[in-house]
Amino acid sequence: MNTILPRSGTAFMLRKGERLKITDIKGEQVSDFTCFNLDDTKEYLSSGRTIDYAETIFLTKGHPFYSNRSNIMFNIIEDTVGRHDFLLTPCSADTFRIIYGDENPHRGCFGNLCEALEPFGIDPDSIPICFNVFMNVAVDGETGKISVLPPKSKEGDYIIIEAAMDLIVGMTACSAEMSNNYSFKPIGYSILKNETAE
Amino acid sequence: MNTILPRSGTAFMLRKGERLKITDIKGEQVSDFTCFNLDDTKEYLSSGRTIDYAETIFLTKGHPFYSNRSNIMFNIIEDTVGRHDFLLTPCSADTFRIIYGDENPHRGCFGNLCEALEPFGIDPDSIPICFNVFMNVAVDGETGKISVLPPKSKEGDYIIIEAAMDLIVGMTACSAEMSNNYSFKPIGYSILKNETAE
Repeated sequence: MNTILPRSGTAFMLRKGERLKITDIKGEQVSDFTCFNLDDTKEYLSSGRTIDYAETIFLTKGHPFYSNRSNIMFNIIEDTVGRHDFLLTPCSADTFRIIYGDENPHRGCFGNLCEALEPFGIDPDSIPICFNVFMNVAVDGETGKISVLPPKSKEGDYIIIEAAMDLIVGMTACSAEMSNNYSFKPIGYSILKNETAE
Repeated sequence: MNTILPRSGTAFMLRKGERLKITDIKGEQVSDFTCFNLDDTKEYLSSGRTIDYAETIFLTKGHPFYSNRSNIMFNIIEDTVGRHDFLLTPCSADTFRIIYGDENPHRGCFGNLCEALEPFGIDPDSIPICFNVFMNVAVDGETGKISVLPPKSKEGDYIIIEAAMDLIVGMTACSAEMSNNYSFKPIGYSILKNETAE
């Protein structure tokens, strides 16, 4: 298993049919996840399309994850937690400045994704709303208020996704205090070959 | 007042300090709205940033609307309805195919925005999640399920926004049955000069 150190990020290719296991090594840690079509990086993971077609904001096993072009990019094959966020953009220096009032803000998941995805030719403006694995965002259906709560994930919890096209994946061990119950921890990942793939 | 005909769209410039009034002429009609920085169209209206900073999914007067770069693009100055959607992408041929099962689908708000924004050099992949004015999307906070309900807007209801930077605006009279209570109607808009602007 590969490890993403606390408050850092990585990017890599995931081929169609390959499975990616994302593990919360210590529990209560979020991983901001996004992906792009390897062959045309203007096609990206779209929260708006995915939520629209799934008719839920809580995505898990059984919900196809769509691109901005309405193509399926991946599916969740296993999910031991069942609660993730798909509403919020990655934390950034601006997030820490606006929400936390930090004077010398960390670059956040956004800055980490920028650096990790730059070698693949993906620029900062092209990083969309992420699928925030293990992030627990409650929504009050009456008022609309959102609340960032501690993740429901415990040590060793994981999801497994299967790529439905060749992908560039970017992911982080999230840098925002509220998202991780005020303790920065690593995230694990490993690519599993899918024996049933074409 | 200008009129956007049912199931069509338009695009235009809105200068910093100018105000745009968007009117539901007949009631229960949605307008998908997006905008870009006139001077650099890679900066666009971001639902993820806006929801994150406002801490609510129901945006209205008092909530700054942010770009992907965390700059304020506009504010709502007046809002006679108070319920709009900022979760879903514009309806498209794929939407009608996947959700409605249409065999010969309409191009939807997405297609209309593509055509309207093309003269401004904005390509289809750059059209983000829209602020769907007057769209009424309920979220069940327990299950996450979303439901597209008839708009709460009645004949003559409106919002007024004020641009905080020079903008290219794209907007539609929405093409999706569920969003408009199964009746396609026009949307009105007019640009008001703001006497208090710098």
